Amino acid sequence: MKRSEVRAAQRRTAEMFAKAGIVMTPEEIENIEIAWFGLDNLEREGLELVTYVNTDRYCAKELVMFPPQTCPEHRHPPVGTDPGKMETFRCRWGKVYLYVEGEPTENIKARIPEGSEPYYTVFHEIELSPGGQYTIPPNTKHWFQAGPEGAIVSEFSSTSRDEFDIFTDPRIRRIPQIEED
Amino acid sequence: MKRSEVRAAQRRTAEMFAKAGIVMTPEEIENIEIAWFGLDNLEREGLELVTYVNTDRYCAKELVMFPPQTCPEHRHPPVGTDPGKMETFRCRWGKVYLYVEGEPTENIKARIPEGSEPYYTVFHEIELSPGGQYTIPPNTKHWFQAGPEGAIVSEFSSTSRDEFDIFTDPRIRRIPQIEED
Repeated sequence: MKRSEVRAAQRRTAEMFAKAGIVMTPEEIENIEIAWFGLDNLEREGLELVTYVNTDRYCAKELVMFPPQTCPEHRHPPVGTDPGKMETFRCRWGKVYLYVEGEPTENIKARIPEGSEPYYTVFHEIELSPGGQYTIPPNTKHWFQAGPEGAIVSEFSSTSRDEFDIFTDPRIRRIPQIEED
Repeated sequence: MKRSEVRAAQRRTAEMFAKAGIVMTPEEIENIEIAWFGLDNLEREGLELVTYVNTDRYCAKELVMFPPQTCPEHRHPPVGTDPGKMETFRCRWGKVYLYVEGEPTENIKARIPEGSEPYYTVFHEIELSPGGQYTIPPNTKHWFQAGPEGAIVSEFSSTSRDEFDIFTDPRIRRIPQIEED
């Protein structure tokens, strides 16, 4: 992605925080992380986030999804003595459809991103509205998609080590470079 | 405290969540924890809270303070192999004055609760407004007081084991019984 596209996505994210009444500092706004996973379409497969804190014991983030963005399927594997990241999603605003391993739900509400069908393999659906939350065990495949207005989701977790995440889609690079305009 | 007083404090807490745009489920509202520490005056020394999640790896809570409530000085000691709870406070609404070990601040903004003066001993002041946050290391004495409108503070932390907290005030019991009316 180009620097100008990253800036535009940061502005849109900031507007969603403002609409939801979630206060960020100017420095946090400036550093909103835009995750496009090295794929070519942020609107299709992507995620925006602010990491509040990430220590060797716990982590907290605020995730933003534009409609109908999808965070691609991945898992958090064991790393050394860490059994893998465990995370709790709490929907704050909008709606999010979360898919995890388990009994597949018939007629899921999300639409699998076109062209990425082979890389979505778990279909046990959890629908989260504001106040709803769900805890994903370590090393469990999951993916999630925003509802029609987008979503803001608080993530509470053990230590985050994004660089070890394993995505089902082999085309994905978690931390790609920004291209200068 | 009597059951009716606990219910009234829960209602007031729910109103503050609503005012701040923080959505809770009916079950969370029903179970808001009112912490009066076995002291006789919730308005003076007390805290209201909802625990979103508390696993063996991490914990997340939403803390509410009525003005001019104070959470009394305490620390989170090591428990077994756990070096003690580490916690990050992030102010979401209102204002909170936090005091930790370190260089004492002259003319602190909080007023020490009357009758409890001997039990407040650390005075390094951190003032948190919405978007402001601070991480308290394990086993570090701290206390905090709401600003003039009260406060809502997200707490992200390692595992919470409130029953092991060590309060400076020997009169305090962390988990006292509710008296039926």
